[in-house]
Amino acid sequence: MAKLLSGKEVAENISAELNARAEDLKARGYSPCLSVIRIGDRPGDCSYERGAVRRCETAGIKCMTHHLPKDVSQDELLSLIDELNGDESVHGVLLLRPLPRGMDEDLVVNRLRPEKDVDCMTDLSMSGLLSGGRNRFMPCTAEAAMAFFDYYGIDSTGMNAVVIGRSLVFGKPAALMLVNRNATVTVCHTRTRDLPSITRQADILITAAGHANTVTAEHVSPGQIVIDVGINAGEDGRLCGDAAFEDIKDIVGAITPVPGGVGAVTTSILARHVIEACEAAAGKRDNGNGLTEKEIYSAI
Amino acid sequence: MAKLLSGKEVAENISAELNARAEDLKARGYSPCLSVIRIGDRPGDCSYERGAVRRCETAGIKCMTHHLPKDVSQDELLSLIDELNGDESVHGVLLLRPLPRGMDEDLVVNRLRPEKDVDCMTDLSMSGLLSGGRNRFMPCTAEAAMAFFDYYGIDSTGMNAVVIGRSLVFGKPAALMLVNRNATVTVCHTRTRDLPSITRQADILITAAGHANTVTAEHVSPGQIVIDVGINAGEDGRLCGDAAFEDIKDIVGAITPVPGGVGAVTTSILARHVIEACEAAAGKRDNGNGLTEKEIYSAI
Repeated sequence: MAKLLSGKEVAENISAELNARAEDLKARGYSPCLSVIRIGDRPGDCSYERGAVRRCETAGIKCMTHHLPKDVSQDELLSLIDELNGDESVHGVLLLRPLPRGMDEDLVVNRLRPEKDVDCMTDLSMSGLLSGGRNRFMPCTAEAAMAFFDYYGIDSTGMNAVVIGRSLVFGKPAALMLVNRNATVTVCHTRTRDLPSITRQADILITAAGHANTVTAEHVSPGQIVIDVGINAGEDGRLCGDAAFEDIKDIVGAITPVPGGVGAVTTSILARHVIEACEAAAGKRDNGNGLTEKEIYSAI
Repeated sequence: MAKLLSGKEVAENISAELNARAEDLKARGYSPCLSVIRIGDRPGDCSYERGAVRRCETAGIKCMTHHLPKDVSQDELLSLIDELNGDESVHGVLLLRPLPRGMDEDLVVNRLRPEKDVDCMTDLSMSGLLSGGRNRFMPCTAEAAMAFFDYYGIDSTGMNAVVIGRSLVFGKPAALMLVNRNATVTVCHTRTRDLPSITRQADILITAAGHANTVTAEHVSPGQIVIDVGINAGEDGRLCGDAAFEDIKDIVGAITPVPGGVGAVTTSILARHVIEACEAAAGKRDNGNGLTEKEIYSAI
C-alpha cells in the first residue's frame, strides 16, 4: 500500500504556522482580514465560502463577507472592489467566480489591486508565475499541490514531473512552479497521444483532468508520487479524484486521497496569502519609505 | 541530409505580409512607427538596433531611435517612456536591455503601456502567455520559433515537444505557446537528469540552452524537427547554435541553421507587433467607442 499523503496534516501544519504569524501581527497592532465577495447563492460558492471562512478564522484571520444579489450591476461590483482596494483594514479579497453572464470578467478581476489578490485572479498576479513569483500571490490550488512536497520533504530537483491538465488555474501554474523547483516537467492534456507511456515515466504525477479514472493501473509505475487534484463525482455518487485509487494504491509509492488531499490544503494557502498580504502592509507602514514594496515581499 | 528550415524564407514571407498591411494602414492615414531606446553604446545593442530598424523599415515601419548616455538617470529614462506612452504617433517601443546598474528594472519596464510593449517586457504582456495571449504581444524570439511551424505547415497537435531552457525570454514562453498549440510539452534545463533519453523521444526539439554542442548525435532521433535558438561563438570563433549541426544533420528530419534560422525571424516578429499595435490604435480611433480594445485585439 502506498504512503498516504494527508492533506489534513499539511493543512494543520500550515495553520499552526499561520497562527503564530497572526499573533505576531496582532501584537504589532495589525489584524489580518479577508473580504469575500459572493454574488447570488450557488451551492458550490456557498460551500467554498464556508470552508474558506472557517479555515481563515482558525488561522486568526478576520473574515468579512459581502453577498450581492445575482442581478447586481457590474458598476456596483466595481464600486465594492474599489472600496475594498482603498480600505487599509482589508488585506485580501476573494471574489467567487464565474461572474454573472454579461459582466466583463477581464475588466472586473483586474480592478483589484494585486497586493490584495490572494486568489491570483489578476493578470499582474499571473505574471508572477513567469517572473519567478516573488512579488505576487500564486493560484491557491497549484500552491497547495506544492505544499505536499514541502511538508513531506520531497525535493523535486531533477525529478521527472508530469502534469495532466493545462488550465489557467492549475495545470499551467503548477507546471511553471515545478520548473522553478528544478523538476523536468511535461504537460499533458486532451490532445496528448499515448498518455500512459508518458505518465509511467514520471517520478511525480500530478493529475488535474477533472475526470474520474483518468489515471488507472496502466498509467502508473512503482514508487511514483501521485498528487490527485481532481474533485469528481464517482459512479456511486461519492466524491473521488482523477485517479482510480483502489487500482493504483498498491503500485505507486505515495498518493494523496480524495477527499482529504489537495482540496483540504487549498484554503490553507488562501489563509497564508492573507497573512502575507497583512505582513507586507504592516512592513510597509512600519518602515515608512525605508523599504520598497519589492524588498518587503522578498523578505516574506 | 535534413531539410533546412530557412529563417530567411520565413522572414521574407512575414515581410511581404507586413508590407501589405502597412500599405493598408497608410491608405487609412496611419503611419506605423517604432521607437527604439538605447542607453550607451554596447556593441550587441547597436547591432540588434541596426537589424531591428532595417527589418522594420523594410516592412514599411518608420523608426525613431533615442540614444541616451550610459549615465542617464532613471528619472530621465522614465520621462522618455512617459513621453512615448503619450505620443499617439508612436505604436511600439523597444527598450534595449539590460539597463544600467542601479536602475530598478521592474519599475522602468512596467512603466511602458502594454499596448506599445512590442517586445513583451512588461508584466502585463507576460500574463498574456498564460491567459492565451490574445490581448498582448508575446516575446519575439519565442514567437519567431513558432513562425517556422506556421510557414512550413507543421501542426504540433499531439506531438511531443521538448524545450531545452527555462528562461523568461524564451524557454517558459515557448513551452506555454506549444501547450496552447496542443503539443505535449516537456521543459528541460540544467537540472534535468539524462537529457539525451528525454530529447530522443521528442517529435519537436527546441534548444535554447545558450551553449554550443548542447545537442549532439546522442540527443536526437530520425525524423525529428530541431529548432535551434542558440546563438553562440564556436571553438573556431564562428557563430553557431546549440546543436552540433554537422553531427546531427544526417539523422534528424528538419533543422534550422545558425545563422539564418530563428535569429533571422526575431526582428520580423518585432515588426509584426508594431503593425498590429498600429492596427489596434487605428481600429480604436476609426471606431470611436464602437469596439472595445479587447474586441479590436481579438480581431487582429
